[in-house]
Amino acid sequence: MTLLSALTGDPEVEALLSDAAQLDAKLAFERALAEASAETGWISEAAATAIGQAIDGFEPDWSALAAGMAQDGVVVPALVKQLRAQLPEPHRAALHKGATSQDVTDTALMLQLARVFDVFESRLTALLDHFDALAKEHGQRELMAHTRMQVALPTTWDAKLASWSEPLRRQLQAITSLRRSLLVIQLGGPVGDRASFGEHGNAIAAKVAQRLDLGLATPWQATRDPIIALGSLLTQITGALGKLGVDVTLLAQNEIAAVRIEGGGGSSAMAHKSNPVNAEVLVALARFNAGLSGTLAQAQLHENERSGAAWTLEWLTLPSMLVNTGASLRLAGKLQQQLHLA
Amino acid sequence: MTLLSALTGDPEVEALLSDAAQLDAKLAFERALAEASAETGWISEAAATAIGQAIDGFEPDWSALAAGMAQDGVVVPALVKQLRAQLPEPHRAALHKGATSQDVTDTALMLQLARVFDVFESRLTALLDHFDALAKEHGQRELMAHTRMQVALPTTWDAKLASWSEPLRRQLQAITSLRRSLLVIQLGGPVGDRASFGEHGNAIAAKVAQRLDLGLATPWQATRDPIIALGSLLTQITGALGKLGVDVTLLAQNEIAAVRIEGGGGSSAMAHKSNPVNAEVLVALARFNAGLSGTLAQAQLHENERSGAAWTLEWLTLPSMLVNTGASLRLAGKLQQQLHLA
Amino acid sequence: MTLLSALTGDPEVEALLSDAAQLDAKLAFERALAEASAETGWISEAAATAIGQAIDGFEPDWSALAAGMAQDGVVVPALVKQLRAQLPEPHRAALHKGATSQDVTDTALMLQLARVFDVFESRLTALLDHFDALAKEHGQRELMAHTRMQVALPTTWDAKLASWSEPLRRQLQAITSLRRSLLVIQLGGPVGDRASFGEHGNAIAAKVAQRLDLGLATPWQATRDPIIALGSLLTQITGALGKLGVDVTLLAQNEIAAVRIEGGGGSSAMAHKSNPVNAEVLVALARFNAGLSGTLAQAQLHENERSGAAWTLEWLTLPSMLVNTGASLRLAGKLQQQLHLA
Amino acid sequence: MTLLSALTGDPEVEALLSDAAQLDAKLAFERALAEASAETGWISEAAATAIGQAIDGFEPDWSALAAGMAQDGVVVPALVKQLRAQLPEPHRAALHKGATSQDVTDTALMLQLARVFDVFESRLTALLDHFDALAKEHGQRELMAHTRMQVALPTTWDAKLASWSEPLRRQLQAITSLRRSLLVIQLGGPVGDRASFGEHGNAIAAKVAQRLDLGLATPWQATRDPIIALGSLLTQITGALGKLGVDVTLLAQNEIAAVRIEGGGGSSAMAHKSNPVNAEVLVALARFNAGLSGTLAQAQLHENERSGAAWTLEWLTLPSMLVNTGASLRLAGKLQQQLHLA
Repeated sequence: MTLLSALTGDPEVEALLSDAAQLDAKLAFERALAEASAETGWISEAAATAIGQAIDGFEPDWSALAAGMAQDGVVVPALVKQLRAQLPEPHRAALHKGATSQDVTDTALMLQLARVFDVFESRLTALLDHFDALAKEHGQRELMAHTRMQVALPTTWDAKLASWSEPLRRQLQAITSLRRSLLVIQLGGPVGDRASFGEHGNAIAAKVAQRLDLGLATPWQATRDPIIALGSLLTQITGALGKLGVDVTLLAQNEIAAVRIEGGGGSSAMAHKSNPVNAEVLVALARFNAGLSGTLAQAQLHENERSGAAWTLEWLTLPSMLVNTGASLRLAGKLQQQLHLA
Repeated sequence: MTLLSALTGDPEVEALLSDAAQLDAKLAFERALAEASAETGWISEAAATAIGQAIDGFEPDWSALAAGMAQDGVVVPALVKQLRAQLPEPHRAALHKGATSQDVTDTALMLQLARVFDVFESRLTALLDHFDALAKEHGQRELMAHTRMQVALPTTWDAKLASWSEPLRRQLQAITSLRRSLLVIQLGGPVGDRASFGEHGNAIAAKVAQRLDLGLATPWQATRDPIIALGSLLTQITGALGKLGVDVTLLAQNEIAAVRIEGGGGSSAMAHKSNPVNAEVLVALARFNAGLSGTLAQAQLHENERSGAAWTLEWLTLPSMLVNTGASLRLAGKLQQQLHLA
Repeated sequence: MTLLSALTGDPEVEALLSDAAQLDAKLAFERALAEASAETGWISEAAATAIGQAIDGFEPDWSALAAGMAQDGVVVPALVKQLRAQLPEPHRAALHKGATSQDVTDTALMLQLARVFDVFESRLTALLDHFDALAKEHGQRELMAHTRMQVALPTTWDAKLASWSEPLRRQLQAITSLRRSLLVIQLGGPVGDRASFGEHGNAIAAKVAQRLDLGLATPWQATRDPIIALGSLLTQITGALGKLGVDVTLLAQNEIAAVRIEGGGGSSAMAHKSNPVNAEVLVALARFNAGLSGTLAQAQLHENERSGAAWTLEWLTLPSMLVNTGASLRLAGKLQQQLHLA
Repeated sequence: MTLLSALTGDPEVEALLSDAAQLDAKLAFERALAEASAETGWISEAAATAIGQAIDGFEPDWSALAAGMAQDGVVVPALVKQLRAQLPEPHRAALHKGATSQDVTDTALMLQLARVFDVFESRLTALLDHFDALAKEHGQRELMAHTRMQVALPTTWDAKLASWSEPLRRQLQAITSLRRSLLVIQLGGPVGDRASFGEHGNAIAAKVAQRLDLGLATPWQATRDPIIALGSLLTQITGALGKLGVDVTLLAQNEIAAVRIEGGGGSSAMAHKSNPVNAEVLVALARFNAGLSGTLAQAQLHENERSGAAWTLEWLTLPSMLVNTGASLRLAGKLQQQLHLA
């Protein structure tokens, strides 16, 4: 953990996206593929059993994986090589048979996303509960509304709290709905048409999906619009929390004091300061994610059946967006604890 | 129409977003508001009738509207002033009673979006029909797949056409689904809590929505995540068509010639050139929209009950994104006509 | 002029970038090219004279130009065709001889930029003069500083005004320096190596540059980093003015009232409001330009000797950035007039 | 090092930006400040000596620093507290006297940038040397030019190599020039007006600058346009290398084979593939940096005398851009070694 990530990161989400978590998810894919392939007769039962055992006992050579990543632009060739070395020769070809690196990588991402969504849902629910409790207790109290940075007319805390909650409620629903539409397997083989699995492609795909508790989908290796949609949802979440951050920094101004932040940040030079640090970081993360969502969207433009450039760009942006979103949810929780309505 | 917009614009969508179209939509809102207000007893029937007649005969003073826009940052105060001048004095206060500029502007946008969606749906359907016809005729033919910019393995035109069609099919569905979730009225009054309508707020809102054939929603003036989601969908459409553009420029390379473009662009210096202009513009529009979507997402961060800065930023980006999307759909249609599978 | 551009546009800069201004600049290039070509013996003096006369009397068929733009992705082929039709047959080939569309288009852009820079320099100077005058009159007065959105310690208006002026002073200098490094001719011929001009390429280039009062440069048709640098400078200008806008909206809050805005924007619902509209639009334009600068930077990635996609993306972003910058300078001037230090 | 950073990272630049390197730079600032303060009589010589000794023997409590970062939004308060605990009581107040967190943090960044620039200059020089050698050996050979993705006319490798070199040459110069204009100290005190140093502010600033071999500047804590300009330069470097990457992926297509990549990336499914991985990553990094530059530019909009939100956004983007730039330069070097002109 770096110093910066102590402020802007999220250890829990970072762990779910770590190399170790990625490896686990990739191994889960290879295991499910072997089992599904055996079931359809595409590989032998003995091979599937051997593959399962190799995965059970697998201890990766991380530096060789890193070298493979640098060489091939994707870690799977090196990983498959290491796994195959653990297999008796006759079963080696059965591992990863018909599949391609992208099948492993994209499906593994989906498995990881499912876990990340758990975290998001749980944090969103907690934030909403807290706002609901605030509304119950303070909702009828009056608050001066401000429009275009000027005093407008009195409103109620109910209205303010609703403006903070409603987007989060929509986004919680959207995550649930994405579970069905986004969290699907990738299985296409080298060029994405499942031809590499002979007659067995669709059957294997269905069984892999079932084993991994993911949805079934036609191959999508070069059609990434659902990933762009995910990026937008993440941005909408951080945007909603960034709006909360903006409001809190404004309401907590000394001259306005409509809220008070308990335990704000200190200054090295001004002992009297209580800075709305968490609110400010919510703003920063919202703007960062907004920008990243635009860059992620550039990665929709794959060349032909697979673009190394576009795919790499996705890797450079999406994980960071997931961490930013987790961090925003984490910090919004902290901010709720610090916040006192005046 | 500028020269550039002859290449990258869309006259049909531009017309639906023009000042004239905006004005019509704003007048439709004021009419519906007056009728709904009369029905609930918030204004008199006589006032509603007078307002309807004033709108029927209204001829705007465009230069005064422009001056009002520059002065107030929103055109509605000047528009309401002009409309009121057409009303007998006793009915003037009934016009726009309880409403605020944003109620008019946001609801008008929704009315315009409904028309724009008609265009998008129709064009998406036509594109899909054409791809389906191509697949029926040529789907079984072989095509060399390319991954990571290198020759991979043979695949079929079916697979290629599916990679172009599937995102568009998802996006057509998404537009239909947005009709229900996005196209809703805005009615909140000055600070977005409907308090300005006394007891009548919710009833008036329901009746306005019904009259305008829009969904009902709580006020959303400072919670713009559905707009961000729309921006993402637009980007996904142009991204899918940009991917088509990328593929066509690659497949039409002279050395590859997997497709031929009939009637490509000419050069002022090289008579032999047939440039894949429409495909290139699809790429440019996709990258433009991707970037704009990230900027639009910055506009989610409203300050308190209404941010002039964030709202203006939305105006600077969203209409352009709609036009870009229309233009991409238009150009994809042209490209389909030019495209011959080799 | 649209209603929105009444608020966020800049008629003066828009005129300098209009189709008419572009055409003038393109004709200036063709004239200078003809004269320089005659001087080096690449075309005959008679041809150059005829070309000059054709340009003098040229009345474009705008709709044919628009059709050519849509067909070729660049207007020059249609323009050259129209111009040639005005020439006696023997001189037709002399027009545009050796040049390519991009030579015309890029050089014309430079001529237009020189005029736009005039506007920017003049407005920056006026803004700086006003701030200097304010500092002279009010600089010693005290002002409460705010850091991290909290009251910090008293400072002076001198410090505040310096924080608004210094970036503008740097940017004024940067524009002057860009005149030398950025405003250069493009002359490369079809593939950018001047081979199309036989032995005469460098000599013609030097003479064209001299005639158009532009710098001399090797062809840069696919190496657009200076354009990206320009985009950044524009963003730094709007960013500096956006920071001014942020400060003014904060200082003008009713509860703080460190400045007062005379003649702020009115509301359709709240008669007491005086909204800091110009300050808000400065913020919006700054964020818009920031986003556009990132998208413009995507256009540095040209494919080989010329990318239609990247070039079109540049056209979609750079002119808008120039107008945004002009508009920001314009609105900052208006804001200065409205601003009273409390 | 993560697996992804094995592909897209840069260990050397990452080390120069690490927490340890940041801490060293911050300590260097505090030492220089103490020495300069003693020299002007702002603190005693004894205090400066004690501070120097405390820094010599300082062993940070990293977890307390992380906790401080999370609490205060900036690490300096916790760092100063730890350092003061190492000092005899009478000298504690002399440490950091008059300074604020931002003075430490921004000046430390400049010290780090000076080291990063060393790396960039050295790598740019090596890249240029290699291109010069290629031009010397192969420059006269013919190469088919491609414009708008179509065969154009023959050109020479000289022209192609120039299009790769010239931007890098400009950027090397720009870095050298930034050393003078960008690499300056920050010394402003709590609100950026040096008032906290009594009469000694300017003298101390001059001496700190001299000791740290940085330029002198008026406080710039809330005027970050030079940082935005740096971001643009980084983007121009990665953009130039991204354009190289685009060209190489196009020229190395099997059907074109104008270059050959030795030792390209392997596939887990297609043994015949030699993927242009390094070229693709250059494209991805260029697009990533382009997007980040737009987001960094959002961070120019500081609120009043210091914005925690904007500053944090800068931290979230700039270091990543520096690493991306280092990685691009690193990978371009690798690609040069792999590249054979056909």
